[in-house]
Amino acid sequence: MVSEPNNWGRFGTDDQRGTLNLLTPATVLDALACARTGQVLNLAMPIRGATSSRAPTTVPHLRGRPLPQHFMSVDGGDYAAGARAIGAGLRMADDALIVTHHGTTTHMDALCHMWEGDQLYNGHPASRVRSYGAARCGIEQVGGIVARGVFFDVPRHLGMAHLPVDFRIGAALLEEIGPGLRQGDVAVIRTGWPLTWPDTYWSGQPGLAPDAGRWLAGRDVAAVACDNAAIGGLNADQLADESLEDDLHLILLHRHGVHLIEMLWLEELAQAAPADFVLVVAPLKIEGGTGSPVSPLAIL
Amino acid sequence: MVSEPNNWGRFGTDDQRGTLNLLTPATVLDALACARTGQVLNLAMPIRGATSSRAPTTVPHLRGRPLPQHFMSVDGGDYAAGARAIGAGLRMADDALIVTHHGTTTHMDALCHMWEGDQLYNGHPASRVRSYGAARCGIEQVGGIVARGVFFDVPRHLGMAHLPVDFRIGAALLEEIGPGLRQGDVAVIRTGWPLTWPDTYWSGQPGLAPDAGRWLAGRDVAAVACDNAAIGGLNADQLADESLEDDLHLILLHRHGVHLIEMLWLEELAQAAPADFVLVVAPLKIEGGTGSPVSPLAIL
Amino acid sequence: MVSEPNNWGRFGTDDQRGTLNLLTPATVLDALACARTGQVLNLAMPIRGATSSRAPTTVPHLRGRPLPQHFMSVDGGDYAAGARAIGAGLRMADDALIVTHHGTTTHMDALCHMWEGDQLYNGHPASRVRSYGAARCGIEQVGGIVARGVFFDVPRHLGMAHLPVDFRIGAALLEEIGPGLRQGDVAVIRTGWPLTWPDTYWSGQPGLAPDAGRWLAGRDVAAVACDNAAIGGLNADQLADESLEDDLHLILLHRHGVHLIEMLWLEELAQAAPADFVLVVAPLKIEGGTGSPVSPLAIL
Amino acid sequence: MVSEPNNWGRFGTDDQRGTLNLLTPATVLDALACARTGQVLNLAMPIRGATSSRAPTTVPHLRGRPLPQHFMSVDGGDYAAGARAIGAGLRMADDALIVTHHGTTTHMDALCHMWEGDQLYNGHPASRVRSYGAARCGIEQVGGIVARGVFFDVPRHLGMAHLPVDFRIGAALLEEIGPGLRQGDVAVIRTGWPLTWPDTYWSGQPGLAPDAGRWLAGRDVAAVACDNAAIGGLNADQLADESLEDDLHLILLHRHGVHLIEMLWLEELAQAAPADFVLVVAPLKIEGGTGSPVSPLAIL
Repeated sequence: MVSEPNNWGRFGTDDQRGTLNLLTPATVLDALACARTGQVLNLAMPIRGATSSRAPTTVPHLRGRPLPQHFMSVDGGDYAAGARAIGAGLRMADDALIVTHHGTTTHMDALCHMWEGDQLYNGHPASRVRSYGAARCGIEQVGGIVARGVFFDVPRHLGMAHLPVDFRIGAALLEEIGPGLRQGDVAVIRTGWPLTWPDTYWSGQPGLAPDAGRWLAGRDVAAVACDNAAIGGLNADQLADESLEDDLHLILLHRHGVHLIEMLWLEELAQAAPADFVLVVAPLKIEGGTGSPVSPLAIL
Repeated sequence: MVSEPNNWGRFGTDDQRGTLNLLTPATVLDALACARTGQVLNLAMPIRGATSSRAPTTVPHLRGRPLPQHFMSVDGGDYAAGARAIGAGLRMADDALIVTHHGTTTHMDALCHMWEGDQLYNGHPASRVRSYGAARCGIEQVGGIVARGVFFDVPRHLGMAHLPVDFRIGAALLEEIGPGLRQGDVAVIRTGWPLTWPDTYWSGQPGLAPDAGRWLAGRDVAAVACDNAAIGGLNADQLADESLEDDLHLILLHRHGVHLIEMLWLEELAQAAPADFVLVVAPLKIEGGTGSPVSPLAIL
Repeated sequence: MVSEPNNWGRFGTDDQRGTLNLLTPATVLDALACARTGQVLNLAMPIRGATSSRAPTTVPHLRGRPLPQHFMSVDGGDYAAGARAIGAGLRMADDALIVTHHGTTTHMDALCHMWEGDQLYNGHPASRVRSYGAARCGIEQVGGIVARGVFFDVPRHLGMAHLPVDFRIGAALLEEIGPGLRQGDVAVIRTGWPLTWPDTYWSGQPGLAPDAGRWLAGRDVAAVACDNAAIGGLNADQLADESLEDDLHLILLHRHGVHLIEMLWLEELAQAAPADFVLVVAPLKIEGGTGSPVSPLAIL
Repeated sequence: MVSEPNNWGRFGTDDQRGTLNLLTPATVLDALACARTGQVLNLAMPIRGATSSRAPTTVPHLRGRPLPQHFMSVDGGDYAAGARAIGAGLRMADDALIVTHHGTTTHMDALCHMWEGDQLYNGHPASRVRSYGAARCGIEQVGGIVARGVFFDVPRHLGMAHLPVDFRIGAALLEEIGPGLRQGDVAVIRTGWPLTWPDTYWSGQPGLAPDAGRWLAGRDVAAVACDNAAIGGLNADQLADESLEDDLHLILLHRHGVHLIEMLWLEELAQAAPADFVLVVAPLKIEGGTGSPVSPLAIL
């Protein structure tokens, strides 16, 4: 049964966590039981921000987005050039980061990130998302995800290195790959598209078809994670082509409160090829944030 | 036996992960077995960056540090004011974060953060820590921590709400509170000092005594986490008072490769009062970073 | 005659430059004729942004504002530490600046900076000032100011080092000091308050009384420049105390389109003590900006 | 006579202003006499930083540089969405700017921006240019420029819309166009290259030939301003092709202390076509900055 749009009754009108409410202590303990080997993989792409170089442009990102900037406010070079140590001889390096995470690095979307009309997920007024940050459905509501991750390695299933640019993953294909997906799981979906960087990465992106989004929502997943930039596919203008009705962000994030985790690096996971594993995602507690850069961990 | 400074032989000269190398698949599986109730706590303070307000100044931080800045580059206010939706009606909020994490929020120190002389931990040349970032011992080397957290609630043990400003936690006290600390554990130490914000927070800070640092290093902990700003204590000028020999960052981070996690929020953990738990910390993969803001998770 | 609020008819409904329209080629040539000695003074406070130090806190600023951050993305320290030169041997330093100018440094306010109700100066809809910037009355409309500056050194006139914190400069006093103020001039008003930094700077600020604002507007000045933070006075909470009717920003900026230049450093000018001079102010052409940091020049 | 490299004796060893020392009160008064019509032109390109859009990419810039980011921390949209006014009804817009000016917008280079070996201009040690900023030859040393601008409209002289990508402007051509260039003047040189944006702007850039740099230094100009990105030409990799000996930045900035102003917008000036004019440039007083974004003004 597919949950009704904007009527996710079990959570009540004040809910700002959406399907993350499915993550109970019991599901957490169940998830931890999926660890078999104890190998830990970090599913994040690097945040490469050396500002006075082209380094930031060498990591997959959407065209036209402001890339991460990383500055050292004191470093070893300063001491090499004669800077005095602190106190009796202590030396230190300090730095700062500027990051606009959507479209530039591995990140998690808050429920306030996208909507239609005047209401966020669950009827929260969009007018509460202002310059001061989102007073509703901000990323600080997430806390952290500890859940079973179910791995959908679509190109491997199809015998491809990566999906073609215009491939849209349908519900039937997801069901075929991961029939055991249960309520409270996180679907981790691989397209392999980051492997095309930089050659054809900007030519568009493969992604989920609308019926796949509905299928995932109907299975009551806690979250959806993918190695593409927008869960759904993108055209050559880097836009989603679907109608509002079929837009993947609206289906999952807006109508069903399913948090999205995007731009993951899944290549090591693909080599390990677990059917499931423990997934831990802990976004920064940015008050009112529309999301956060994250370092998702897979514990195999 | 206390490990020798700068001679952490078991890791070899190329090691940039220090005691995190103690985290093997076997220790990960052992750590997961510490989860009993499945309750998940986020041990981070909020990142409060609403820039055109005093909000950023209301979270504990060291005096004089640049506070987080959080900007919305598009938000619900824009639509309320008449901004056009995207395509057929999609609306979105997007944002950017500027963060200088040391001293301003819950964060993890990379091994390149502090040193004496010309060498970082394990002999890596400090001259490789430059404006472009740290080419040695950067935070991207961490990957992620999944370990047993052992909780040292010092003020509770002493029957205090929080430690006094000049309290230095000695080795004997740690041993008394957590005799079961094992190799590969993370010592999570509570001072309660954040409870003094804003009244006396800047008057100095309680922290570990040098012999406690040596005791922890000698126990081969994987990392040390604390709710104060610098693991060691601070005087009213917000500086460590110890000699180089006794400086806590040098003892732990520099000489023994023990990563540090600072400025945690441990009050909910103190209420739950577990002896041990699963600790998961996944810093952002900032290449060459001296550390990262983090959202540590405790799985009880 | 005092111009009517929101009815500055001579500029028409599309005007976004306010009284800067008074600066015609003829007034520019007249202004240049005020140069007598050729001495050039820079009336800006330093932008001190060395981020890993307390340097930024040592320049006068309003409490709680994010201070400038200045980062070197490559510098001489990198070469001292062994960084390779570019090509055959070229070496360079590069940097980045983060600045939130209101309340932190010498700056000019755009006409979109303050208003009451739903309309900016001259009836422009406030709803056009959005996250993307101000589509009306942004700082990029200014171009540049070349005008006669008329110097009102109020504390010197009164035999004081600086005005007391609760001093409000009335119209009669301005008239007494600068009776020759003409249409198209810029009134440059000294309070001496920056001399109190850091001792009592945050105890409030002296500034113009409402009738002084009306007197200046009635004289059709092109702009008003002052060494305090808000033209009008501030109380100990750093807020203007006046009613909306009497608020200096509303009288000058909002109702009469008079641009404001704030936080100037006028001490060298006070020593030179010219009655008038050429004032040149060229804000950065920040599209949609609410203002800009500036380096005003006085040509004596 | 061409001045000797690194031996600009008349300024002494402490000089950090280079040829700007040629700007005396007398030259300022002479320069002001060049104003004839009183028309004021702003020679800056817009700083277009609306971050959640492609706007920043639509202004000429060098490939791979971090573009300006402009954020509104409170704006009219917030009030449209219900934000409370301040006090009795005051409303305001506030913003922040992040700018890395070299290669992204109209800016002025400080004397610390480029060098060879271990010394900046005039023997100042390059080791004093560190993460905290340049303790020698920073942009705050400039103060402001008020000088005669002499206009070299090279494409107009040659009957072209703009110079071809590989055109290098020789000394003979400069002498032909502006024989009256005098000590203390600023040479303002037009290539017309910004007109190629975005079509072929990144294919390289026309610029000065080395002998033109030497000719300008020999004429004792106070500064050189150009509408290209690097005074000299650039190849398709956006690099200068010359040997160290012939590098334009080294000839002008490093060896002779000639400040450079780059990426000007000279198209309105080209239409007005003055032989000379008053040029006023006032960089932000960024302490230790390698340069500053500027809004140069031409007073015709």
